[in-house]
Amino acid sequence: MSCAAESLRFRRSLQRERDRMSDADNPALGQAWFPSRWGAEDEIGAGNLLGPHTVLEAARLIRSGETVSLGFPYRVGMPLSPGRTFGLKMPGGPTGGPEGAVSRTVWNDDFVCTEIGQIGTHMDALGHLGHQVTYPCGHCDTLVYNGNKLSEIWSPYGLKKLGIEKAPIFFTRGVLLDVQALFGEPLANGVEITPEHLLQCIDRQGLDHNDWLRPGDVVLIRTGHGSRFFSEAANWYDGEPGLGLAAAEFLSALQPVVVGADNFAIDVVPPVDPDMVLPCHQHLIMRHGIYLHEGMNLDALAETGRSEFVYAFAPLRIEGATGSPGMPFAIL
Amino acid sequence: MSCAAESLRFRRSLQRERDRMSDADNPALGQAWFPSRWGAEDEIGAGNLLGPHTVLEAARLIRSGETVSLGFPYRVGMPLSPGRTFGLKMPGGPTGGPEGAVSRTVWNDDFVCTEIGQIGTHMDALGHLGHQVTYPCGHCDTLVYNGNKLSEIWSPYGLKKLGIEKAPIFFTRGVLLDVQALFGEPLANGVEITPEHLLQCIDRQGLDHNDWLRPGDVVLIRTGHGSRFFSEAANWYDGEPGLGLAAAEFLSALQPVVVGADNFAIDVVPPVDPDMVLPCHQHLIMRHGIYLHEGMNLDALAETGRSEFVYAFAPLRIEGATGSPGMPFAIL
Amino acid sequence: MSCAAESLRFRRSLQRERDRMSDADNPALGQAWFPSRWGAEDEIGAGNLLGPHTVLEAARLIRSGETVSLGFPYRVGMPLSPGRTFGLKMPGGPTGGPEGAVSRTVWNDDFVCTEIGQIGTHMDALGHLGHQVTYPCGHCDTLVYNGNKLSEIWSPYGLKKLGIEKAPIFFTRGVLLDVQALFGEPLANGVEITPEHLLQCIDRQGLDHNDWLRPGDVVLIRTGHGSRFFSEAANWYDGEPGLGLAAAEFLSALQPVVVGADNFAIDVVPPVDPDMVLPCHQHLIMRHGIYLHEGMNLDALAETGRSEFVYAFAPLRIEGATGSPGMPFAIL
Amino acid sequence: MSCAAESLRFRRSLQRERDRMSDADNPALGQAWFPSRWGAEDEIGAGNLLGPHTVLEAARLIRSGETVSLGFPYRVGMPLSPGRTFGLKMPGGPTGGPEGAVSRTVWNDDFVCTEIGQIGTHMDALGHLGHQVTYPCGHCDTLVYNGNKLSEIWSPYGLKKLGIEKAPIFFTRGVLLDVQALFGEPLANGVEITPEHLLQCIDRQGLDHNDWLRPGDVVLIRTGHGSRFFSEAANWYDGEPGLGLAAAEFLSALQPVVVGADNFAIDVVPPVDPDMVLPCHQHLIMRHGIYLHEGMNLDALAETGRSEFVYAFAPLRIEGATGSPGMPFAIL
Repeated sequence: MSCAAESLRFRRSLQRERDRMSDADNPALGQAWFPSRWGAEDEIGAGNLLGPHTVLEAARLIRSGETVSLGFPYRVGMPLSPGRTFGLKMPGGPTGGPEGAVSRTVWNDDFVCTEIGQIGTHMDALGHLGHQVTYPCGHCDTLVYNGNKLSEIWSPYGLKKLGIEKAPIFFTRGVLLDVQALFGEPLANGVEITPEHLLQCIDRQGLDHNDWLRPGDVVLIRTGHGSRFFSEAANWYDGEPGLGLAAAEFLSALQPVVVGADNFAIDVVPPVDPDMVLPCHQHLIMRHGIYLHEGMNLDALAETGRSEFVYAFAPLRIEGATGSPGMPFAIL
Repeated sequence: MSCAAESLRFRRSLQRERDRMSDADNPALGQAWFPSRWGAEDEIGAGNLLGPHTVLEAARLIRSGETVSLGFPYRVGMPLSPGRTFGLKMPGGPTGGPEGAVSRTVWNDDFVCTEIGQIGTHMDALGHLGHQVTYPCGHCDTLVYNGNKLSEIWSPYGLKKLGIEKAPIFFTRGVLLDVQALFGEPLANGVEITPEHLLQCIDRQGLDHNDWLRPGDVVLIRTGHGSRFFSEAANWYDGEPGLGLAAAEFLSALQPVVVGADNFAIDVVPPVDPDMVLPCHQHLIMRHGIYLHEGMNLDALAETGRSEFVYAFAPLRIEGATGSPGMPFAIL
Repeated sequence: MSCAAESLRFRRSLQRERDRMSDADNPALGQAWFPSRWGAEDEIGAGNLLGPHTVLEAARLIRSGETVSLGFPYRVGMPLSPGRTFGLKMPGGPTGGPEGAVSRTVWNDDFVCTEIGQIGTHMDALGHLGHQVTYPCGHCDTLVYNGNKLSEIWSPYGLKKLGIEKAPIFFTRGVLLDVQALFGEPLANGVEITPEHLLQCIDRQGLDHNDWLRPGDVVLIRTGHGSRFFSEAANWYDGEPGLGLAAAEFLSALQPVVVGADNFAIDVVPPVDPDMVLPCHQHLIMRHGIYLHEGMNLDALAETGRSEFVYAFAPLRIEGATGSPGMPFAIL
Repeated sequence: MSCAAESLRFRRSLQRERDRMSDADNPALGQAWFPSRWGAEDEIGAGNLLGPHTVLEAARLIRSGETVSLGFPYRVGMPLSPGRTFGLKMPGGPTGGPEGAVSRTVWNDDFVCTEIGQIGTHMDALGHLGHQVTYPCGHCDTLVYNGNKLSEIWSPYGLKKLGIEKAPIFFTRGVLLDVQALFGEPLANGVEITPEHLLQCIDRQGLDHNDWLRPGDVVLIRTGHGSRFFSEAANWYDGEPGLGLAAAEFLSALQPVVVGADNFAIDVVPPVDPDMVLPCHQHLIMRHGIYLHEGMNLDALAETGRSEFVYAFAPLRIEGATGSPGMPFAIL
């Protein structure tokens, strides 16, 4: 696809998306994107694509038996989006004991206070993000995946629907598209990744154009923003290279279960169109029930040279949470 | 082994353990258990037994492709050890947005405050637990894995050594010993599981006496205490069936990387010998560098009838934390 | 006033209140209670009644020089309304040091996680509570003091208006009405305190019917519920004796700056009319800008036999908080 | 006192303090500073100097009836000592309700996680700070007020002795010494305030040299560091002007109940003698049981021109906490 063709395609896509978004203001028309293809009651989204067959296919990719962490550790000083908090305190030194005249057993706890589901390497729950609609009377509500109204599923102590505890266990085929390697360096903030870039990665990495991503697979995008995670922690949330809406559409058509990246929001920030903030978030999570894995550390994986691997991740099942931290890993 | 013989063996084991513990008071003699077999600087313990070969062996166990969660969800109202806290608060409804005139993007956070590494289903870090020694002058310190002094590795904001971020990724062969099924019902609090019980499970489940557990494997013990996790949450920490020291010695001789159970401390509580509190903890974590996975939910796994499976778990790498929550899972 | 007359008066008052509340559904008519008498921009409410003159008048009441705490301490195990949390953890033992080769200075911190403004003895901010209105289109918002819309003043990180940091310093005349002494025992849950009861207290305590409470004074009601604070902590929020709406109207007519009580909500719980939940809260805070001081400990004050005293309290000025803990005190 | 004489006096004082500190290593000699003058069991320290007589004397100072806050508000972005955390989250919008078909009552909570007793304007508990002693065997403990061993009074969930809940209600005579006005500008970091400076303030402010501070009074020192509290929040803990040990000795001889300042630690930072870190803290809290009020906002008080006033403060009685936030205030 030429650059001009791609650009045209993108402008059209953007217009279509703006049209659809406007439609969503009208609940009658908003049904373009809900109920979901898995029914009006579904809370799992693309997780429905998983099953024993995807596990078995993934297991066949295991060759060397090496495991590679795809996440960053969590510590005070890590990047935090404005308003969020991370604290770890050790209640005691030690916390408990000694117990038992002979064993004199002693133990320690740690205590955290943090937006646990939305810091560092984390996966968003399907209830994390939505689109605010304005009713004719001027009042507003927010629609999330499957047309759920946030006002109906939200509570002060957790989401009543679409919390991260509903997410499945992920053990499925993963594919890395190394855009950083394509560019030869980490992409700068604001650089939009297009379908063309992704196609070039597919070529460059020797993947099969017609079969590089299958339903239920995971696709991970290395932008290079992860290389600045600890070294530029204070500015890490100021902007990022990331997917434009066209790239998200390109990916969603292939039905992955997870789209992950080494940036904080998958999307490019600042956005291409200032009226469309985090459009890939809306497109992928809200419309297609695809899970986003953000803040990944893809450097070690990239160094292995492997484009295909098992992606394994089991979310921390805090009921009603909007996301999950944890250490996703690849098996090679 | 007859009951009488077993009992004799156990009494002797207990005496030996008491002797050793007393030795540990004398730092010169305490070297019976440190440095570790992996050297004085090791922070990984039995994690050293893992490698590509254990991953490849485990992968060969995948047959049906089914995945089974081995953990409980986390929520207000779950069992909590005295002194610990669990709170989940949603800052906002929604937290952020709307952003973008067309996309009107809206998102939500959740905020937790809790002893994250020591609640519900969790794995202990090697620095979690130790043995208090008293020096001739009357002063005390606590020794943890590899003879580290707690006074030297502890800080108010996390462990400086042996934190959970040092633990490996676990993808290895798991074996379930279903003591609940052996008894025909959940064991009562205070019931000690002995080597004899474990041998009977091995028989009953058709495992090979000489090859049922190999170095780097994970062994999971179903006591039945997990069946009371939510239904008797307020009393769940009052006591539990669990391993006695003889059973822990029986297991550690086979060099597993993880010992897990559906109770809160692997050990039987109250202890067999009131002077020896959590002796399996000390034996397994402190002396052998074996990871404990506590508060597991083994019911669904037991229902599958499978005794061998892949055990997969990647700890939440909070630096300096004393343990990790998360959802371990089996692949069948 | 006879009991029958009082009862009639109360029924009428309740009807009037219901009428007014229904009016509030209609924003045009809701202006019955806003803007406030101190103008549409006011955020202080009855705090406007305070000034140097009330301080000087209060100071004249100081006779013995005795100070009496009017609050409970805060600790794990104190009563907590469902959903709220209280944790105190000491990060370290010690937290910091030793610093300085000679001084070897060492220090300790404590760390809390809690709904700080809404636990135990606390004062509500004017933005704490409101009345939900439903617009003709069916959508809702909440109106708080001075007709502010909650949707406009709320943020995930604190109230943008009417937070507790706006409250004044209180050093003013206080009057105790000891209903527990009138009844001869702590009142039972659900017992409504009426204007007649308050008048009987005024008589019994020898206060001047025509001058017992002046604008800017504080009135404290001892119901006896405070005597159950620690001893019945688990059930303390199940119900309480407290003011009925008629009593709140009786008090608000005299323009106090604070109404306090030794129960959790000033109001009687369960309410007299199930359709009117916490009507005194709405009447006092929302309509009259009067501060509520809840969960007070009035026993020591009652034992002194003093009905008049200085009430001193300076709220903890956490910006945007919905209330303040602290230790109000009396000077005799 | 000439500068040379003062300097000599100071060097001698420092030597004496060093001698004493070394003595404290020897528990037998350490009794130079404990038991306290109020007995070995005392937990109140200089609070013993308070009583009805000091309240009555203070009340006589009330002339205009004006009240002045002496504290800063608390918010995200305020100065925080390294390692500490401040977060405020609103669980919900709203948190509760609507309740009642007619009243439709709605309410809000806020939730904080923070080192509540050691942030912003706060008073230290007597158990906050101590001196580490090394026993002949090489082991260490920390001695705090009245010779209490930290190892005996500390717990992971709060101090068992000397917590802030033991502190009295303060309503007593306060005196402001405005060193900032003496210098004509805010003092720079590291500038030591000497007895000579304090004497010059006493002169300049027209206070009586022989009767300016009486037992049970509060003395507040305006250094100018408070003027940088919000404007230089990120650097506020890097250093400060403050008292040297000679000034602390000068003050303690007059037996105040509280020494307060508009800096973070009363002491000058960096210290005069690098081997003596926070020596005024040790001298005042540990040896004399005098309460420190740190991070005060003394600008509004200074503007009134009043040197004498009522100082009023009632600590937040969180059991076992190492300090208390809150809003101390002056009455003029």
